[in-house]
Order: sequence, then C-alpha cells, then structure tokens
Amino acid sequence: MTARPLTFDINDLSIASLRAAYVQGLTPLQLVEHLIGRMQVDSEQDSHHVWIHRLEANWLRDYARQLASKNPADLPLYGIPFAIKDNIDLAGVPTTAACPDFAYVPAESATVVQKLMDAGAIPLGKTNLDQFATGLNGTRSPYGVARNSINPDYIAGGSSSGSALAVALNLASFSLGTDTAGSGRVPAAFNQLVGLKPTCGLLSNRGVVPACRSLDSVSIFAKNAADSLIVLEVAQGFDPAEPYSKPIQLAAAKRLNTVGIPRADQLQFFGDSEYTALFAKAVEQLKAQGFTLTELDFTPFLDAAKLLYAGPWLAERYHVVQDLIQQQPDSVLPVIRQIIGKATQYSAVDCFAAFYQLAEYKRQADQIMALVDVMLTPTTGSIFTVTDMLANPVELNNQLGYYTNFMNLLDFSAIALPAGQRADGLPFGITFFAQAAQDLSLLTLAQQLEQVLA
Amino acid sequence: MTARPLTFDINDLSIASLRAAYVQGLTPLQLVEHLIGRMQVDSEQDSHHVWIHRLEANWLRDYARQLASKNPADLPLYGIPFAIKDNIDLAGVPTTAACPDFAYVPAESATVVQKLMDAGAIPLGKTNLDQFATGLNGTRSPYGVARNSINPDYIAGGSSSGSALAVALNLASFSLGTDTAGSGRVPAAFNQLVGLKPTCGLLSNRGVVPACRSLDSVSIFAKNAADSLIVLEVAQGFDPAEPYSKPIQLAAAKRLNTVGIPRADQLQFFGDSEYTALFAKAVEQLKAQGFTLTELDFTPFLDAAKLLYAGPWLAERYHVVQDLIQQQPDSVLPVIRQIIGKATQYSAVDCFAAFYQLAEYKRQADQIMALVDVMLTPTTGSIFTVTDMLANPVELNNQLGYYTNFMNLLDFSAIALPAGQRADGLPFGITFFAQAAQDLSLLTLAQQLEQVLA
Repeated sequence: MTARPLTFDINDLSIASLRAAYVQGLTPLQLVEHLIGRMQVDSEQDSHHVWIHRLEANWLRDYARQLASKNPADLPLYGIPFAIKDNIDLAGVPTTAACPDFAYVPAESATVVQKLMDAGAIPLGKTNLDQFATGLNGTRSPYGVARNSINPDYIAGGSSSGSALAVALNLASFSLGTDTAGSGRVPAAFNQLVGLKPTCGLLSNRGVVPACRSLDSVSIFAKNAADSLIVLEVAQGFDPAEPYSKPIQLAAAKRLNTVGIPRADQLQFFGDSEYTALFAKAVEQLKAQGFTLTELDFTPFLDAAKLLYAGPWLAERYHVVQDLIQQQPDSVLPVIRQIIGKATQYSAVDCFAAFYQLAEYKRQADQIMALVDVMLTPTTGSIFTVTDMLANPVELNNQLGYYTNFMNLLDFSAIALPAGQRADGLPFGITFFAQAAQDLSLLTLAQQLEQVLA
Repeated sequence: MTARPLTFDINDLSIASLRAAYVQGLTPLQLVEHLIGRMQVDSEQDSHHVWIHRLEANWLRDYARQLASKNPADLPLYGIPFAIKDNIDLAGVPTTAACPDFAYVPAESATVVQKLMDAGAIPLGKTNLDQFATGLNGTRSPYGVARNSINPDYIAGGSSSGSALAVALNLASFSLGTDTAGSGRVPAAFNQLVGLKPTCGLLSNRGVVPACRSLDSVSIFAKNAADSLIVLEVAQGFDPAEPYSKPIQLAAAKRLNTVGIPRADQLQFFGDSEYTALFAKAVEQLKAQGFTLTELDFTPFLDAAKLLYAGPWLAERYHVVQDLIQQQPDSVLPVIRQIIGKATQYSAVDCFAAFYQLAEYKRQADQIMALVDVMLTPTTGSIFTVTDMLANPVELNNQLGYYTNFMNLLDFSAIALPAGQRADGLPFGITFFAQAAQDLSLLTLAQQLEQVLA
C-alpha cells in the first residue's frame, strides 16, 4: 500500500479518530513511524518518567507490517497503540513491577494483553508505577518520580502512573493499569482521563503481578468513555486458567438517575478549597442535568477503606515480595518495605476477624447503595506537589485513598471522570460507583456526562 | 376439640404420616403428650446422650394448645416436632455449644428456628454435639458421649450427634444440625438418615454459634428426602441481618444422569471390607438404574479437604473461643483445645497463601465437576467403636472427614443417604454432591434412589 500523507490530528489518538484515519488510508506502519518519532524526541529525557521499557523501533515496525496484512473489519482495535503497566506481562519483555531485582521475562503475555493484541492493538511498552503497585502517588519508583502531565511539579498519581501519562501525553490511545486501592482512578483524576475500574474478576489477572491477589482489577485509561467501552469489550472475559477470574454476566446498560453522595460532614478535601468548590460545582451540574442527588451516610464505606492498609490485606502484598524482603531487603524501596513489612504483625485470627468486619460493612454499604442508582464522590480530596509528597509519603498517600480504598473490598465497579480544573490548571476528578457487573451503566453515564463536566 | 385415639404409627413421625394423622383428628397436644411420655420413659438415662436441654412438658403443652387455634392449611409444618442442635439459638433456652462455661441465654431464636416455628413446627429441645461443633464423631461432649442409634457401642457421628439421634430414635420428625466439615452428613450416615447439607448461605446462620463462620451451613436431618425438602423450603431464604447469608436463586430440579466417582485408588475404607463392598454395591445399583458412572480424578477435592484442619481455617474456630481458651482454658475439652489451639501458629500471610491454594483447587474441582451431573462418594470410609474413637481421637476423626472436609471450602451442595448395612446392622451411607444452588436436584435424586438403596 502506498503511503499517503497523514490525515489525522496527531494529538487525537482516540479510537474513533484513528479508525477514521485508517479508513482514509493511514497504515499501521505510518502510525508507528509517527509514534517512534515522538518517542525518540522524548526519549532522551522521558521527563515525566512514563516508561520503564519501550519496545524497539524495529519490533514495532515489524508488528505494524504484520498487522497491515489483516482486515481492519475483523479487528476491533486494528492499529490502536496502547501502553502496559509494568506489572502486567508482555511476552519476551521484562516485567519489573518497578523493582529491578524482582524482574523476570515472561514467556507468555497476560491474558488481557493477548486479547488486545489479538484484536489488533499495538503494544508500545511497559510503564512506570509505584513499586509493586503499592501507592497512589507515583513517586515510589526507582525508574524516576512520575510527574504530572499538566504540571510536572505535581504528582501524576499512582500506582498506574506511567499508563495514565502515556495516554495524557498522547503517546498511546489507551493503556492498562491495575487498581487494587485506587491505582486506576487516582492517576486518571490527576491527568484528566477516564479511568475505568472494572468489576473484580471481569478482566483476567493471569500474567499480572499481584498487589492484593484477592482484590486486584486490571483497569483501563482512555481519553473518553467510548474508547474505554471498546477496550473493555475486548479485554474482558472469563479465564479458566486464573482462579480469581469470574464468569460475570454484565448487566445491560441502563440509565442511572438517582445519585448518592457522602453526607457533607463526611467529605474530605484536606484544605483544598478549589477541589471543594469543584465538587460542589459537579453536583450542581448533575442537578441541572435532571439527576436527583441524595446525601447518604458514608460510614461503612470509610470503615471498609481503613481495613486495606491497616489490616491483614497487607499480607497479600507481603506474600508477593516475602522472598525478596527476607533475602535482599535493600531491593525494595524503604517506603514500600515499611508499609508491607507491617503485614507480619497480623495473625490468621486477625485475618478472619477483619473478614467478618468487612462482611458487616458490605451488608451495610449494600443497604445504602440500594437507595440510589449510583454513588458519586470526588476521586481524591486534593493533589500534592512531588516535594510535599516525598516529605510525607505515607500520610498524604492515605489521604489520596480516602474515596478509593474501599472499592474492591466492597466489590463495586467504578469509573473516574475529569470534572474541571483548578485555577492553576490542575485537574479535578470525580468517581461514580455501583454494584459489581454494572460497568456498562457506568460507561453510559460517563458518555452522557463527559462533555457537561469537562 | 375432643380427643380421639391416635391413629398414626408412633414409630413413623414422618411429615406425611403426621399430616395424615392431623387430618384424621390428631391434635398437636395429643402428639406432644405422646412425645412427653416417650421423653419421660427415656429421661432417666438418655442412654444415647441425645439431649443437652429438653423443653418443659408444660411449655410444650402450652405451645401445642396455641398451635391448635391455627389453621393447619396455613402452616406447612403444623404440629411437626423437631430438635435443635445446641449451637443454634432457641429464645429463652441456654445455648451451650456443648461447653457449659460458654453458655448464654439468647433473647431471640435463630432465624431458621424462628422460620420453622412460624410454619408450625414444635421445638422439643437442644441436642448434644461435639464441643463447638469441632469433630465428626460425637464423643467430644461434657454432656456425655453420643451413642449410635443402632448399636450404642459405636459412635453416633458428629458434630450434630444429638440431632441425628433424635430423628433416628423417633423422638422428632426432623432436626437441625450444622455442617462445616461434615457434621450434617457423618451422623446421617451412622444413623440411617437423610442428611442435607444445603448450599452455604442458603439458610441463615444468624443465631448460630460459628464453627468456621465463613463455611458454616445449617443442615437438616430427616427420615426421607421428601421431609428434607419440606423443611428446606421453610428454613431457607436470604437474611439481610446475617452477612454470610446470600440471595441464592436455587436452580430448578433437573434429573441427574451422569455420576462421577473417585478413581479406585483414591477410595479409602481404612480396612473396612464391608463398607468397601457396600460402596461397590451402591455403584452397581446405580448402574442398574440406568445411571452412567465415571471414575474421575479426586485429587483437588482431597487436597482441599486437607486445608480445613491443617490450615488457617482453624483460626475461625479459635476466633469463637479465644477469650475462653485464654482466660479459662479448662472450660474447653482437652482434645478441642489441642485442635483449635494450633490456630495461633498461622499468620495472615499463611491465611492468604491457603486461600490462593484453595482458589486453584476450586478451579480444578469445577473442571472435573463439569464432566458429570453429580458426584458420588461414600459418606465415610468406616465407622468406629466409642472405645477406639476415644483411644485415637484425632487420627480417626480425620479419617471420618476424608470424603466430607472439602465440601464447604469448595462451595458445593450435598446430600447424605443411607445405602445398606453391614452384617452387624451398622449402616453405610453415601453422599451425592453438586455445585452450589443444586439442592433441589440433589433432593430429587435422593427421592428417586432412597427405596432402591435402602
């Protein structure tokens, strides 16, 4: 096929835009050449610390050439470039989980990565993260502090920092993160993206380095909800080879009209008056759109959230790194060692006691959820500079998880959306969440609202 | 209403028989007087050690009089007498869990007990059990060693010993047990009863002293499957007040035709040649009835079974008794203290490691289960004398759990059925099991087979 001049906006890598360009004659090789060019311009410094490993230019060219022999009509993600958080396997490329001494080279790609590639998507590389996906801020990596796409003095959010940055900086159409405590939502909020945290078990975790294996969910970053939906449809599906994969029947999308929000005294903005105002504005915008908003007691959600880092679920993180932490403790960042090391203080009895507590909170939370179609919170109460974050790494990280830590413990589906900016241009985000298997309704709501809120 | 002579067979307390007698004019008071008479005859000795607490004769008379004012047509269990394992609450009567120092007097009845009484059933008393429902043999009680209904030199099975005996000895029409490791199946096998181990979460555990709270299932003993079904229909149902209750949609009953059995080398009869032959005979009887039998690899079931008493689930039992075991250790039987005390050696990390193992076994077991409609095993591989049991209380108990310990860990529904006797008259039992929510199909299969097998 003869090359034609590129006819698409280089700063719009959305799936719709690329599909249109492919129809007009764009080839995967042309796209790849363009992306290689961009990556080369950026490669000397990677000043935001997006990448841990970028695929070789020639590998990408070969991959694009192979793709060109296929029929775009057969492949829902034909020629769509994506980035992969570096705790998710891509065959033949090291998986580090942001810990060089933990690295291994997988023979097979993770189930989700393979599904995306089988659908025509082009992997670009492996992205930076808070080590072992333990963190919501993006500063906890030996591969460099991830820096916010809008203002590099600020944190990018984590742990899926690089995956969010790759999309925000127009280096990829979409990306894969993982979300255990909020890692697929906080970086979305801080980089003005849609962050879908699918129902746990909907996307296979086979080939994913666990954070908390019983709670991990592969997540999707995109510029808009339509793209998130396309990626979800390809990536999801029961995987008999992964014990935590579930045969989930997604509920059909329905319109969500009634929205629960935390009682005013349960909202926390940690002194950020602009985020306070932006959340109030989002609430008003929803009312103006005809939604009914109701303040609800947020206690069981907040109680459940506290269990995640002050309870036995830390033992799941410890289980992943115990050999390393015992034999080569210096391989693990001090802040990660400090957090995960606390796991050893918990007994099996503590473990079950916490499960019983969680079961109570789940029942209480479900009763509150039953009063509305969907719940709404800020995604985070504030955003911090890299300097402040590094000076106070545990307390500020806990603040980032105030609205996110309970989500997988309570088995909800969630979507983070951009909702305006502060005066300094830093974005604010909100999160809608619903019961498990309600992902399609959340995506429909996001599509309905993303123009209004942005 | 004028008393008429009793027209029913006093040794047939089946629901069908009693219903017919009530239609013919039997009154609840007449039945109760009869049962009081029987209980008085037996009360001096209670030689099988059925009871921990029998309700007062006058209480029973009052209860029967109140019942007489109601319409039998409105009450599916009108005037049906039942016994309650003494780890399940009956309002105003002590719950001991076979530990006098643990005893408390509940203000409310357990949800299942209340449902049965609301349906017209008459509670007779609280039955003996292995302390804290920890055991499958019936010898672990300060209220006396439960003795087999057919031959008192032999064990009755446990932990729901007294509940099985009450039905086997024609003192009650049905009874409630609890089944965590096999406590609703082993005593059924040893006393020639139908023992239904419903899907976990189908019957509420509210008002039940936990054994392993995440695994406990209230179970039903009856003389036949038809009675079990009537009781199940009344007792089941989602209980929002109990976090481990689940909103289960029972699958409609379907005919089960293909039956999986363990590979010959995986069967264990611990030297009991008669049980060996009785299982072979049951298999032949099924073939003669047109069932297709297939030997399947039983490894994941056996591996899962080992986790229950050699893994962190012991911590659930410890959680229940930790105050007592720490402050008044002599209140707990030495054998129970020995078993449950091992829980403290497990960490939260061990706990999650075992969950991951179990998740793998569950996936493997499900793949095997998918090959057939239903699985069949002996309920136990052998039966022991009380003397032998007391001499070797842990090892022989483990042998009793060989075919039962995995059931709730792997989330299956199960039914134990009588399947003949040894030459000495001691009964042999088999168990059918299927996926969760298949209770109705198992009951249908039991109805189809109980005449053939008995």
